[in-house]
Amino acid sequence: MTELRTAVLGVGRIGRMHADYLAHRVEGVELTKVYDVFAEAATEVGGRLGVQVAGSVAEALTDVDLVAICTSTDTHVDLLVAAAEAGVPVFCEKPVSLDLGRTDRAVAAIADAGIPVHLGFNRRYDPSHRAVRDAVDGGTVGDLELLRITSRDPGPPPISYIETSGGIFCDMTVHDFDMARYVAGSEVVEVTAHGAVRVDPAIGEAGDLDTAVVVMRHENGTITTIDNSRRAVYGYDQRVEAFGSGGMAASHNHHDHSTSLSTAAGTSTAPMQHFFLERYAPSYLSQWDAVVEGVRSGTPEVTVADGRAALVLGLAAGRSVTEGRPVRVDEF
Amino acid sequence: MTELRTAVLGVGRIGRMHADYLAHRVEGVELTKVYDVFAEAATEVGGRLGVQVAGSVAEALTDVDLVAICTSTDTHVDLLVAAAEAGVPVFCEKPVSLDLGRTDRAVAAIADAGIPVHLGFNRRYDPSHRAVRDAVDGGTVGDLELLRITSRDPGPPPISYIETSGGIFCDMTVHDFDMARYVAGSEVVEVTAHGAVRVDPAIGEAGDLDTAVVVMRHENGTITTIDNSRRAVYGYDQRVEAFGSGGMAASHNHHDHSTSLSTAAGTSTAPMQHFFLERYAPSYLSQWDAVVEGVRSGTPEVTVADGRAALVLGLAAGRSVTEGRPVRVDEF
Amino acid sequence: MTELRTAVLGVGRIGRMHADYLAHRVEGVELTKVYDVFAEAATEVGGRLGVQVAGSVAEALTDVDLVAICTSTDTHVDLLVAAAEAGVPVFCEKPVSLDLGRTDRAVAAIADAGIPVHLGFNRRYDPSHRAVRDAVDGGTVGDLELLRITSRDPGPPPISYIETSGGIFCDMTVHDFDMARYVAGSEVVEVTAHGAVRVDPAIGEAGDLDTAVVVMRHENGTITTIDNSRRAVYGYDQRVEAFGSGGMAASHNHHDHSTSLSTAAGTSTAPMQHFFLERYAPSYLSQWDAVVEGVRSGTPEVTVADGRAALVLGLAAGRSVTEGRPVRVDEF
Amino acid sequence: MTELRTAVLGVGRIGRMHADYLAHRVEGVELTKVYDVFAEAATEVGGRLGVQVAGSVAEALTDVDLVAICTSTDTHVDLLVAAAEAGVPVFCEKPVSLDLGRTDRAVAAIADAGIPVHLGFNRRYDPSHRAVRDAVDGGTVGDLELLRITSRDPGPPPISYIETSGGIFCDMTVHDFDMARYVAGSEVVEVTAHGAVRVDPAIGEAGDLDTAVVVMRHENGTITTIDNSRRAVYGYDQRVEAFGSGGMAASHNHHDHSTSLSTAAGTSTAPMQHFFLERYAPSYLSQWDAVVEGVRSGTPEVTVADGRAALVLGLAAGRSVTEGRPVRVDEF
Repeated sequence: MTELRTAVLGVGRIGRMHADYLAHRVEGVELTKVYDVFAEAATEVGGRLGVQVAGSVAEALTDVDLVAICTSTDTHVDLLVAAAEAGVPVFCEKPVSLDLGRTDRAVAAIADAGIPVHLGFNRRYDPSHRAVRDAVDGGTVGDLELLRITSRDPGPPPISYIETSGGIFCDMTVHDFDMARYVAGSEVVEVTAHGAVRVDPAIGEAGDLDTAVVVMRHENGTITTIDNSRRAVYGYDQRVEAFGSGGMAASHNHHDHSTSLSTAAGTSTAPMQHFFLERYAPSYLSQWDAVVEGVRSGTPEVTVADGRAALVLGLAAGRSVTEGRPVRVDEF
Repeated sequence: MTELRTAVLGVGRIGRMHADYLAHRVEGVELTKVYDVFAEAATEVGGRLGVQVAGSVAEALTDVDLVAICTSTDTHVDLLVAAAEAGVPVFCEKPVSLDLGRTDRAVAAIADAGIPVHLGFNRRYDPSHRAVRDAVDGGTVGDLELLRITSRDPGPPPISYIETSGGIFCDMTVHDFDMARYVAGSEVVEVTAHGAVRVDPAIGEAGDLDTAVVVMRHENGTITTIDNSRRAVYGYDQRVEAFGSGGMAASHNHHDHSTSLSTAAGTSTAPMQHFFLERYAPSYLSQWDAVVEGVRSGTPEVTVADGRAALVLGLAAGRSVTEGRPVRVDEF
Repeated sequence: MTELRTAVLGVGRIGRMHADYLAHRVEGVELTKVYDVFAEAATEVGGRLGVQVAGSVAEALTDVDLVAICTSTDTHVDLLVAAAEAGVPVFCEKPVSLDLGRTDRAVAAIADAGIPVHLGFNRRYDPSHRAVRDAVDGGTVGDLELLRITSRDPGPPPISYIETSGGIFCDMTVHDFDMARYVAGSEVVEVTAHGAVRVDPAIGEAGDLDTAVVVMRHENGTITTIDNSRRAVYGYDQRVEAFGSGGMAASHNHHDHSTSLSTAAGTSTAPMQHFFLERYAPSYLSQWDAVVEGVRSGTPEVTVADGRAALVLGLAAGRSVTEGRPVRVDEF
Repeated sequence: MTELRTAVLGVGRIGRMHADYLAHRVEGVELTKVYDVFAEAATEVGGRLGVQVAGSVAEALTDVDLVAICTSTDTHVDLLVAAAEAGVPVFCEKPVSLDLGRTDRAVAAIADAGIPVHLGFNRRYDPSHRAVRDAVDGGTVGDLELLRITSRDPGPPPISYIETSGGIFCDMTVHDFDMARYVAGSEVVEVTAHGAVRVDPAIGEAGDLDTAVVVMRHENGTITTIDNSRRAVYGYDQRVEAFGSGGMAASHNHHDHSTSLSTAAGTSTAPMQHFFLERYAPSYLSQWDAVVEGVRSGTPEVTVADGRAALVLGLAAGRSVTEGRPVRVDEF
């Protein structure tokens, strides 16, 4: 089968990772172009990987079978529309947009063009979380009753990032909203959220929260709880637990290695993995296999509709905190 | 030091356990009497343990230094009042009462009499949960931000029990409410509860829930989440996790033994302990040491005020479910 | 069923534990007498437990259904012979003797008298190690190929104890020799041992080793390795691993509680249990049930023949170290 | 820094892996040539990776800065000599040779040429085993007293492979011999080995063993035990445990993911990794960083002298089994 000629738009931290993976580690794909509004960045990455540096988005979208949108969030919708108009299949980093109207505009353009667009909820491809989903999907957990998601970052981002992030629910919890829909296999009908500023007062001054708990009800009766913190000093804490009539499936944290030390002071294990690009590297790679498959079949596994659904949950959570009440999803 | 002459009132399942422990395994105590409204039960236990069978509560309260109230919940207040009037220190199984007014009557009688009364929130004495509390109290966890309590029974009690239990929040979650207050070291100010009937429709028909999630805010800013189920097919699931600025302390489940089996089918561990009297046996024993100490010092570690506080949280949770809103504790 | 009237001979550390267990925690037994050459010790224990203090061994052996020999090792044979002559069933702490000829004398006396004698290899009754044996016995492990036993004490005994202990192989490894025979269900045919003095030179000056590795071949082809140390600073390290055609069963160490702490410094677990009377408490209790059953049935599960077999392995290991060669068991 | 132009000799399973890694995932290296006596294999790999297919060893050794010898064992010495004569630094898969005289010939040629040669004991670069070594090297373990290495393959290789493998000690245990020297940081002085045919009689008929236990004494007093099996049905069992005066460091097995399942049947974990190229992938990658560093500095971390030392231990183990006695290393 011929390889998909692929362009990467945006070569910041995440785009650079995707470009490296596409160049070296993904089967069925040939990285052919990179583009960035910062020309030097594109030149550096293109030179290192030996691929063409596109001078414009239009040029990047020419003669390619796939485009990876890895630019800043505020540009996603315009680039999705451009790709749709050019008829080029897309991998797009999450989120589509922090705005529901703009998200709908992207959804419509994609539907009109009929191109496959895979939205980058990479955690679905993590082998551990996926094993939880498979245990639900395959019946081991039985009827799902409770779903618990813990997602805590090792440390907060800069305040400048916080200010444009859309807030903890749309920026950080959004992954957990998607995970809840993915594992439960059932839409959420109601969201109750609780938040606090405990990590850094400056986060509160920027209008955001750094500590949050969300409780959701799904159509199928599952109750999901999510807890988030912007700072877990011991590492990147990522766990999913599905509980039901047949039992429990739970993904535990990943550690740097398997060695334990036992001394008079006690027994200690290896440090928890800290960096998300390391912790989730297998998911980013596995996601590419799904993207390639989705382009070939025309049916991507994760879509902009999934992105829209997660955004709605983020907005509902925000409203729940503001108004101090449970918020139904059909309010949106 | 002379041993505390002790009477046990009520020799059902839990009273029988306490009588055995008092007779054989608790230092500083001499079991001298047992009493039960079912005379045969008292005779059987008294005979086996070689102690006097009291013919009445009044007789049981005579010439003793300590009385253990292990009867059914609806008799606790009257017996507490009787003991208070007799000036006999008390160990009382939780709860004091399912009714706030009656609880207050007991609180007042005890205060008037000035007797030490230890309320049986035994889980505080579990070595694993206690280690979580100690990690909070000792500063390892730093400022407490999130507290997660999982408490799932291996299987539901009979419907006849459910009907008089006071409901899941006052019967089952009440232990978790106490745990939250104990670990956080801070009072709860607001309760939001969510419930469902997922395990058995008959529980719903009896007016109760079998699956519940509670979110609470404490005075010190901690957010606690509790999840409960009446049926965890894999065993008695009892975990507490405290998360804060300094890190995380988490108690994990206890297993029957430490042996793992690795075959072509995978690696499996020993079954989780199923029965609460077995899982919490060390806590029941350790609690007795605290009771003895509390009687000697006149200052019990766990009091009827703790029982009242947990009852209020249970009532608040019930109201939250009924009214679909966060409920402030000062509404009670 | 009537309770077995039981006398305890020797109320040092281990005898005192057995007396307490017999008085309070073992069903089917009534502790009726204690005896010790140090009369004060017997008086203290007898007084505390409310049982008769025998003035002599002969008196202790009168009107009892069971005698527990918990005295120092050098007295075991004479007491076994005395009990045999008195026709009293026996529980005897291991070892029978450090001398093979004297052991045989006890074996003969017991056979002549036809009394049941249970030898105290308590570790067979540890739930974790027993689960390993059951996995072998029940077929989960398949054909047993490799057996690994780790047994390391938290710290060395006093040199005065070392001097009369019979050496590491007869004093400490003897438990592991019995475990190997128990788990493998097959006799040992050859022993190769390696030893060193690494913990304390004074142990070497006393003529003993403090670090040892033993490799054994069983009749059924299993190869067992044992490693011992007199000092594991992190606790009492007790593990058994059985490996075969069907898989592996492994008992892991026991910890004080189940709580883990995760901080910036890493994740640590609860301390390992240090004290053998604590670590093996469940085995001592469970062993008593087996003793009672053995007295009733006349067929003890663990016999002086097992004690003799373990002693032979200890002697073979010593000879292997001295002569620097594999030693066949049939040399003895 | 300019990249090292690298040729890969031999593109069977392991050579192909190295070629892929060199082409895509190793920094500081440019794969420029591949060679194989089977021209089609070289053509396929060269074509896929876009590099030159050398027509001969001589051509492969021209204009390169590094050559990776990944051919069959019997060709290693000749290729090492050829590379030495060509003055090309080498990465060579282990073992150098199964013959001590031929090994010495390679050692001499390399010494004469003064080229850096890194021998592929990749397990030294496994993060888990390395953490054990670091705990010894850094003092956490204190004085090393016992070292335990478990190495069990998921299944035996074909009998045809067994027949030319040099036997279990030179083919499989050789990795453990190197690990023992690496972790202990001290040479072995005596080897006692025990073996059996338990997995497959055909292995015995081919003159080999499939189950083995080796005990070794090091110069510094450490006693190492190694156990091997050609078949662990549960996966690839790779563990190292270092025990000393300060405590214990132990590397545990690696699993496919971190998810556990708890049902009425018990709790099970993810399968153990089965395939060595997967289990040790991080070590192969990390080893390449060390190779590049060794070429640049002229001082490789793992040398043919290490290969020779491990071979001697393999030969000593074989002799120990044959002659039924401990064998001193200085017999060789």
